[in-house]
Amino acid sequence: MGVVVPIGEARDPSQSIKPLLDLVATDMAGINRLILDKAISDVELIPQLAHHLIDSGGKRLRPMLTIAAAKLVGYDGDSHIRVAAAVEFMHTATLLHDDVVDESDERRGKKAARILWGNQASVLVGDFLLGQAFRMLVDVGSLAVLRILSNAAAVIAEGEVMQLAAAKNLATTEDEYLAIIDAKTAALFSGAAESGGAIAARPIEELTGLKSYGRNLGIAFQLIDDALDYAGDTKNLGKEIGDDFREGKVTLPVILAYRRGNASERTFWTRVISEGDIQEGDLEHAIALMHQHDAIETTIARARSYGTIARDALAIFNDCSEKQAMQDVIAFCIDRAH
Amino acid sequence: MGVVVPIGEARDPSQSIKPLLDLVATDMAGINRLILDKAISDVELIPQLAHHLIDSGGKRLRPMLTIAAAKLVGYDGDSHIRVAAAVEFMHTATLLHDDVVDESDERRGKKAARILWGNQASVLVGDFLLGQAFRMLVDVGSLAVLRILSNAAAVIAEGEVMQLAAAKNLATTEDEYLAIIDAKTAALFSGAAESGGAIAARPIEELTGLKSYGRNLGIAFQLIDDALDYAGDTKNLGKEIGDDFREGKVTLPVILAYRRGNASERTFWTRVISEGDIQEGDLEHAIALMHQHDAIETTIARARSYGTIARDALAIFNDCSEKQAMQDVIAFCIDRAH
Repeated sequence: MGVVVPIGEARDPSQSIKPLLDLVATDMAGINRLILDKAISDVELIPQLAHHLIDSGGKRLRPMLTIAAAKLVGYDGDSHIRVAAAVEFMHTATLLHDDVVDESDERRGKKAARILWGNQASVLVGDFLLGQAFRMLVDVGSLAVLRILSNAAAVIAEGEVMQLAAAKNLATTEDEYLAIIDAKTAALFSGAAESGGAIAARPIEELTGLKSYGRNLGIAFQLIDDALDYAGDTKNLGKEIGDDFREGKVTLPVILAYRRGNASERTFWTRVISEGDIQEGDLEHAIALMHQHDAIETTIARARSYGTIARDALAIFNDCSEKQAMQDVIAFCIDRAH
Repeated sequence: MGVVVPIGEARDPSQSIKPLLDLVATDMAGINRLILDKAISDVELIPQLAHHLIDSGGKRLRPMLTIAAAKLVGYDGDSHIRVAAAVEFMHTATLLHDDVVDESDERRGKKAARILWGNQASVLVGDFLLGQAFRMLVDVGSLAVLRILSNAAAVIAEGEVMQLAAAKNLATTEDEYLAIIDAKTAALFSGAAESGGAIAARPIEELTGLKSYGRNLGIAFQLIDDALDYAGDTKNLGKEIGDDFREGKVTLPVILAYRRGNASERTFWTRVISEGDIQEGDLEHAIALMHQHDAIETTIARARSYGTIARDALAIFNDCSEKQAMQDVIAFCIDRAH
């Protein structure tokens, strides 16, 4: 049932993330140790639930950005490891709460923690991981990094609330949708990258460059995620095609197909998205309408455009293998899931 | 239906909190302004939901402790206002998540936010308020205070998870129960008081004194809360008698009545608490068994004992009106709800 759309050129995305993986390999081992260490608690349920998610094979893209940014600016201390682990904990906490809010049954191809341990434990362990993240950041002792990431924590929550308020609402504009993903997804990408520079106390123009890189990469990443929900391949994606559709999420492909559709198509979108009345064949029809109106293609084109902004944001840095790896990962985010 | 048990001497508790209220009155006005200011967001749902709780007439006991502690140690800056507001935001975030976890219908005599706006919004607005709390603390810029309160955030969540794991489990010991309330309730009382000293960069023995005061006051406060759930007066309490009973919470009155009861009584407790099979008259029977075994009286005696520890923790400070107000509020916490 998965309709696989070739996204961009037929590049192998595993090749475009390889330079970043190589660059951060040693540090990531340290981060993984720290993550295991800080997910420990005398309260048994906490490590059980935390490990379910931590071990589930996420890409750890966000902490990688922190490490890469620290290396790009020539940071020679070891605090970036703790900052990166805190970033991953913030992300994990968000996933736990997201699954409760979205009532998701799966996450990364495994049963969602809330299905195994309940919504209550997911809420509370998320809170614990967020608390641990701030504890680690306090240990690092950089107020600049604490400012960036406490700001991200509040903005992410704001974005999630915006998304909740926009749920099932087909009147959502592309601008409103962009504001949502800027907050709920791009804020942590942005904070992750900027923190890597802030820990080295780099000048403001470098921090701004890293922040812009992370932000635009995050927007591109989320746009592709939204496209893949209608055009991806379930096996590679680790989530079911049509999850967003079933949850009535108003993402860009839906917004475009709705706005570009005729009256009878809009009646269809209202029934399935706003009223949640989904019948056999509706997902396939939705995907067909999206292709008819170039909704997926436009979404990917937008992602490419944000990817270009991310690339240009790094222009102020001298050419080096770190910069190259950070640019290559933009292609990975856009071409992934082939 | 409320069985009102006289707790301690028939003192008027409003008299024992009056010195503290007078002491902090000016600063609390500043805190209230700051709370209103920081609960603002372009995302409409956030101030709506935050105000529902913020305006609902909580006592703001925790931020008062921060202010009182700062005054006790002679702090002459104005950062204690922001720290106190952050403490109240942390508390509000916890209440929002608690109501979701406990599936509560009411909070402070009003419909719970989750009933009005849903569990999803309650989880996310709680996350937002926690993020705002850390932002405010970063603005203050004291790593000592950030350490105390990020630690409290993680410990509170741990305590909540412990409580969840102990739910309906009558094998919970008094020690285990104390460890739970030490974490879920006393950690924020403790952090609130210690922060008031830390913002003034006071010596370690004063910080330890404030920490111990807050911790033991918090334990006493929670023990009385648990006693009131079986012996309070619904009107004054702002919650229904028997809420804990209906949720199968294993609090100290239950632990004691169960342990002191005979085989047939234990069968009763197992049915109502562990199996959640509650019938007409069961709450009254539970209360009668508690009185028969002095379970409420013992719980209150324990609270008094922690109150004494809290009082003694302040011994290192010179006698002054601030110290007197902080000691008087111990009596308020123990004698309240008459």
